[in-house]
Amino acid sequence: MKNLAERDKKYLWHPLTQHKLHPEMLPIVKAKGALLYDENGTEYIDGIASWYTSAYGHCNDFILKKVYEQMQQLDQVVFSGFTHEPAVKLSEDLINILPQNQGKLFFSDNGSTAVEVGIKMALQYHHNQGNKQHVLLAFEDGFHGDTFGAMSVSSLSVYNGPFEDFFIEVERIPVPTKENIEGVLDALVNRLKQNNIAAFIYEPLVQGAAAMKMHDADGLNRIVSLLQQHNVLTIADEVMTGFGKTGSYFASDHVDTKPDIMCFSKALTAGLMPMAITSCTLNVYEAFYSDELTKGLFHGHTYTANPLACAAALAGIELLRSNEIQSDIQCVIAAHQKFDAEIKSHPKVAGTRQCGIIYALDLNVKMERYGNLRDRLFKHFMDNGVYLRPLGNTIYISAPYIVSDDQLQKIYGTIKGALNLV
Amino acid sequence: MKNLAERDKKYLWHPLTQHKLHPEMLPIVKAKGALLYDENGTEYIDGIASWYTSAYGHCNDFILKKVYEQMQQLDQVVFSGFTHEPAVKLSEDLINILPQNQGKLFFSDNGSTAVEVGIKMALQYHHNQGNKQHVLLAFEDGFHGDTFGAMSVSSLSVYNGPFEDFFIEVERIPVPTKENIEGVLDALVNRLKQNNIAAFIYEPLVQGAAAMKMHDADGLNRIVSLLQQHNVLTIADEVMTGFGKTGSYFASDHVDTKPDIMCFSKALTAGLMPMAITSCTLNVYEAFYSDELTKGLFHGHTYTANPLACAAALAGIELLRSNEIQSDIQCVIAAHQKFDAEIKSHPKVAGTRQCGIIYALDLNVKMERYGNLRDRLFKHFMDNGVYLRPLGNTIYISAPYIVSDDQLQKIYGTIKGALNLV
Repeated sequence: MKNLAERDKKYLWHPLTQHKLHPEMLPIVKAKGALLYDENGTEYIDGIASWYTSAYGHCNDFILKKVYEQMQQLDQVVFSGFTHEPAVKLSEDLINILPQNQGKLFFSDNGSTAVEVGIKMALQYHHNQGNKQHVLLAFEDGFHGDTFGAMSVSSLSVYNGPFEDFFIEVERIPVPTKENIEGVLDALVNRLKQNNIAAFIYEPLVQGAAAMKMHDADGLNRIVSLLQQHNVLTIADEVMTGFGKTGSYFASDHVDTKPDIMCFSKALTAGLMPMAITSCTLNVYEAFYSDELTKGLFHGHTYTANPLACAAALAGIELLRSNEIQSDIQCVIAAHQKFDAEIKSHPKVAGTRQCGIIYALDLNVKMERYGNLRDRLFKHFMDNGVYLRPLGNTIYISAPYIVSDDQLQKIYGTIKGALNLV
Repeated sequence: MKNLAERDKKYLWHPLTQHKLHPEMLPIVKAKGALLYDENGTEYIDGIASWYTSAYGHCNDFILKKVYEQMQQLDQVVFSGFTHEPAVKLSEDLINILPQNQGKLFFSDNGSTAVEVGIKMALQYHHNQGNKQHVLLAFEDGFHGDTFGAMSVSSLSVYNGPFEDFFIEVERIPVPTKENIEGVLDALVNRLKQNNIAAFIYEPLVQGAAAMKMHDADGLNRIVSLLQQHNVLTIADEVMTGFGKTGSYFASDHVDTKPDIMCFSKALTAGLMPMAITSCTLNVYEAFYSDELTKGLFHGHTYTANPLACAAALAGIELLRSNEIQSDIQCVIAAHQKFDAEIKSHPKVAGTRQCGIIYALDLNVKMERYGNLRDRLFKHFMDNGVYLRPLGNTIYISAPYIVSDDQLQKIYGTIKGALNLV
């Protein structure tokens, strides 16, 4: 039998991959805690928690036990007309840690669908009330997913090129800075006079796919607040930032004005399996609650509120709220700060930034998002047993909260080594 | 502590539900084989296999064992740059049962995203070659999902009303019948002269959400064949029909001309958790295989090819290919045929149809899709311990293959009882 890497090439088409330029996939055979293992037993520290999902570590015994128990009881049931304990309990436990204005939860399967549901809630909220608001507003360099609705509000052209003719009407505003905020608000006040903006979608504080670009909570607060005064619904895409990444449960906890709608996925299910939730205020929900059948939200995926995924999410939230994980998060934050003090003035470093456990460092070189230097950096990290995924000239860390200090030091050391490569 | 049904009302917003008209959700606490159980221990035969997912029965020990083993080994890893045994093995086992022209598999999370990927493959296939083909073709009454791209190609207005202004350009053709096929083909030949149709998406043989509307394999074959001769990609949405429902592994097995692209979900993962696959021919894949990075398909969901879901799918395919399940499928088909002979001339029956294990019966009454009589029928079935979900005036059965003959007889008996209600 051929090895896995060879067998992989025969029938698999990988996501976000130009196979002619990147033919080789590394087979991973095992994962535990913050570590991934390849076929030869080589260890890699999972420096990005497998796309920000495995927040409490891979194959976490506490989570596995809960999911296995659920699996033996109730694997799946239609969530239209039926309900079940894991979904009900999850709604209670999640509402308990969400911003207080969130009142209802709608399930789907991934970040893209959570955003699609958020957009549909916003458009239909206005439609159900006979409003003509139909334009969406989004941040420059925002990324919200790969389905047509989610692509429409994203702005990274490498993803969207062939499909741009088919998108919903979206206008973009810059992320707020101390310098631009007054101008951004003035332009918005002017734009709002047309009275046709339905909703604003944004990644609060950290734009993940834009290479962990961070913005100001106060500026964001002023934008969200202004829009809400003009009956524009605000949609916080917390797919990446949610469940502890920013040091709070949610990035929106750092912003005074709370969103009308919030989108969650990734760490929601603690790295076990796909699921997503779109939450909203009772005000949004009530626009759909009617004697008219067609005012309901006729959206639904088959595995909506899958009991196994709900069980994983419940276990994850229990861990997130524990003193142990909260203390782990503080340790990671402090370690990043110490590393930052050491590295930020390095001549090869153009800038650094941190938000909670997310740390990012821009190299003082020009690079293409998927170019050759990016590939050399990636190889350097992997050769040294660290899984990091540079985005253009940005190196970022978003490791599981349970990463050990030794493992963090190894990540930092490998980044220092990378500075000699560029 | 309040009971589940009351607790459900507080924070949950259910899919495809107008909560004001349908406030009550029935709590399901357990499932095993073909049975669902509520809080009081009342049993319900799962007559639609929980939206066509639990093909091999709920909480199937063989499947659970495989998923639990996988869970302890590798829960999740990024599928861009990495690969793993469950995905590789699944690609081999699935290709083995797919139509021979299918060569590559692309993973996503649900039926809607499988369709979005299929549409993106088709549009970018032409875009990458500098073709101007951009219009999509779909069947009248087709349903392909709830995200914006998937909604665009669907045509059931109760779902899409508020969003229609935002859709991709789609033209519709009628499903083929013995009577209309020559006219449909003539119109297509004429329409193809404009040379701008990118792809045709269709549910082969059975349109699920259109109340199990069935059409002719020979007519479909002539349409697919004509379109392929004009460089129009054909996308078979087998999300509902796949994995044994039509008596073959796939509905496309009954049609001589094979599709360029196929979409799978639902029973793919044997009722355990969400996952989807879009397969395609090597011809489609090769249009993306290039030295130009941007000719790649830049689509990806975080949990793409989740190892647990792959393990469930592998176990499901192993069962599907077993003599035992193939024999179960034949028993269900034969039982439906016997029931049909008995019921089809009943004065309250307007018509019946069957494709494999899918059986549908139209009542000889006018009904609204979500109206009062539909609710009374639903209550009748549930009161008699049978979970069926009438669609308008259509009652259909799509039970797990492992349903027993006694259970089938109970379903039939309850349907006969329903005829006295209308």
